[in-house]
Amino acid sequence: MLQLENIYQAAFALKSIIRNTELIHAPKIKPDVNLYIKPENLQVTGSFKVRGAAYKISRLTDEEKAKGVIACSAGNHAQGVALAAARNNIKSIICLPDGAPISKVEATRAYGAQIELVKGVYDDAYNYALKLKDEKSMTFIHPFDDEAVIAGQGTIGLEILNENPDVEAVVVPIGGGGLISGVAYAIKSLRPDVKVYGVQAAGAPSMLKSVNDGKILTLDSVKTIADGIAVKQPGVNTFEYCSKYVDDIVTVTDDETATAILTLMEQQKLVSEGAGAVSVAAVMFDKVPVQGKNTVCIVSGGNIDVTILSRVIDRGLLKSGRLCKLAIELTDKPGQLRDLSAVIANHGANVVSVNYEHAGKGTDVNSCIISMELETKNKAHIKEVREGLTAYGFKLL
Amino acid sequence: MLQLENIYQAAFALKSIIRNTELIHAPKIKPDVNLYIKPENLQVTGSFKVRGAAYKISRLTDEEKAKGVIACSAGNHAQGVALAAARNNIKSIICLPDGAPISKVEATRAYGAQIELVKGVYDDAYNYALKLKDEKSMTFIHPFDDEAVIAGQGTIGLEILNENPDVEAVVVPIGGGGLISGVAYAIKSLRPDVKVYGVQAAGAPSMLKSVNDGKILTLDSVKTIADGIAVKQPGVNTFEYCSKYVDDIVTVTDDETATAILTLMEQQKLVSEGAGAVSVAAVMFDKVPVQGKNTVCIVSGGNIDVTILSRVIDRGLLKSGRLCKLAIELTDKPGQLRDLSAVIANHGANVVSVNYEHAGKGTDVNSCIISMELETKNKAHIKEVREGLTAYGFKLL
Repeated sequence: MLQLENIYQAAFALKSIIRNTELIHAPKIKPDVNLYIKPENLQVTGSFKVRGAAYKISRLTDEEKAKGVIACSAGNHAQGVALAAARNNIKSIICLPDGAPISKVEATRAYGAQIELVKGVYDDAYNYALKLKDEKSMTFIHPFDDEAVIAGQGTIGLEILNENPDVEAVVVPIGGGGLISGVAYAIKSLRPDVKVYGVQAAGAPSMLKSVNDGKILTLDSVKTIADGIAVKQPGVNTFEYCSKYVDDIVTVTDDETATAILTLMEQQKLVSEGAGAVSVAAVMFDKVPVQGKNTVCIVSGGNIDVTILSRVIDRGLLKSGRLCKLAIELTDKPGQLRDLSAVIANHGANVVSVNYEHAGKGTDVNSCIISMELETKNKAHIKEVREGLTAYGFKLL
Repeated sequence: MLQLENIYQAAFALKSIIRNTELIHAPKIKPDVNLYIKPENLQVTGSFKVRGAAYKISRLTDEEKAKGVIACSAGNHAQGVALAAARNNIKSIICLPDGAPISKVEATRAYGAQIELVKGVYDDAYNYALKLKDEKSMTFIHPFDDEAVIAGQGTIGLEILNENPDVEAVVVPIGGGGLISGVAYAIKSLRPDVKVYGVQAAGAPSMLKSVNDGKILTLDSVKTIADGIAVKQPGVNTFEYCSKYVDDIVTVTDDETATAILTLMEQQKLVSEGAGAVSVAAVMFDKVPVQGKNTVCIVSGGNIDVTILSRVIDRGLLKSGRLCKLAIELTDKPGQLRDLSAVIANHGANVVSVNYEHAGKGTDVNSCIISMELETKNKAHIKEVREGLTAYGFKLL
């Protein structure tokens, strides 16, 4: 069983490896909450995972260190283990399924790990890792269900209490539960009055269901943009810690998470991944009872693919009325496009893209359809542009 | 003339208003440079400008404070003045041209400023602000050409030396020159061995040209995505400080700046604006001689419109081969689209968008043209996809 002294020891062991991610006051995100961000997206490797991996490695015997460590992950855990091993001058092997994104593979390799690409899916890579561990007598580093890993993540709880002694609530993302187990244990041991809330993606609520049912459940499938917390089954240890120390677990939708990602970018200039932003989403969308409270949201990581980020931005822009898609039926006569452009320009909207196609079934044979993307100010502005076009005689589809 | 004690005094006066933006080690951005980021994009109001404004305001007499302050800006300076005034419980009026982006107007209003929208362009707003200042005996806060403002910005220099005593070079964005004047004065006063380099946008090199010519020049026009440093004419004071204390001034192109913005997002999880990223661009593209040196880049702000950010990401993705646009001529016979999709899928590319149009002049009358956007891994992958399509018999345009 974890002791508070393990977490203090972890904090000491991590000093030379991790970055001290100072709290960022973010009072504009949710005006009725006195909100602080714990920006673990700014942590080395872009996520908190390096903490648990580094503490686990620091506890190995010299003999174990000489043989090295092994892990199975395509994400933040892989990079955490790779960096922590390199800093301790020990060997690491990371097993990944061969379809893993090249960018993540290369990032992990760059931290000094030996990469083993395994044909198949995650489970194949996992089984191969276990086999390799036995063959080579290496230490397997579990991504969450390990007391030392949990103690390492718990250092975040100490840092929050140390830097913000007035804290009343801490909101923490949950995947396998390693982060919240350590944080909740540290906080409830030192300050049982501080509330600890967990947040899962609505498409992967494995810990929520397990805690509600009082036993570990396995989900058939998980689906969420928060891939870092898309975990089908909680750990044995983490299930116990969550059941005992976490005040409540809530879920957020992908749309709520996308809005939180966009808000963190616009208001705090921070890039977060889906798994990192669910805590902020839970506060923004009133999933946790923190109104009026000094609240810390742990933003656990920022390793989001920029292609996905680009889509999240577009989705957020559409949702807030700053991007607008229009389809307009034009009759084939001269000057139509000129007039259309003039009406749009007169209303102060900015054309981003135009597509043009001959009309299909259900439209006039002499007509064509033009699809446009416009930059607009807000939803009222879109309404104004649409009304202007209709008033001029254009047929909006 | 500025004294070092003014900057120390400013650092003291600012403590309750600004955030201590700790240096972030960023060794991956440019492997041959030991790079640190000074993240003023994480500063309150999203830019360093609040420092100068707050110190200037702290120096006003009680009588001046009672009458309030006035500024003319649509950007970071406006928000800095508004927040600094609000924190000192004094009134602020910000004059802006009426075409200013709604988001910036609202952000400034939210910090507690009274907004005056003036018909016309920046110069009209500026003249109106001067008139109002005289009528109301308010204090005008210049965005850069003011000793107190310069002293406030100079606190960044003290923080860099304090936190990173081994620093050998500091790289600083230049618009009007307020930031670099304060930083260079502080650093050269305390540590003349540390190099200070300034960076301007290639489309707005007013300080560079002025310093080279030995007199203040005014550019006819400026054009850059780094709108925060698109300044036509340096200040009288800032010109003197730059001439005396800055080791060299260089320029970066918009493409280089866009690449730096994308790199800061991907590798450091930081959102920066163009003006903020030029320092990092200068290091990335070898514009400043800092190879092997302990170097601090000041990322001066992060207030970039997300619509622009979205375009910067797309541009960066195209440039690095992770997004690819193809146009393919198809003959009008059944199964063509199916075969095309299959070839693309077999090569592991992901279709993002498709557009289809009847062929125009120069193509077969029976053909049509399909335009696609694909997510790809890198430039080699694009080549592979293109070769696969050609080998199958598709005609790439």
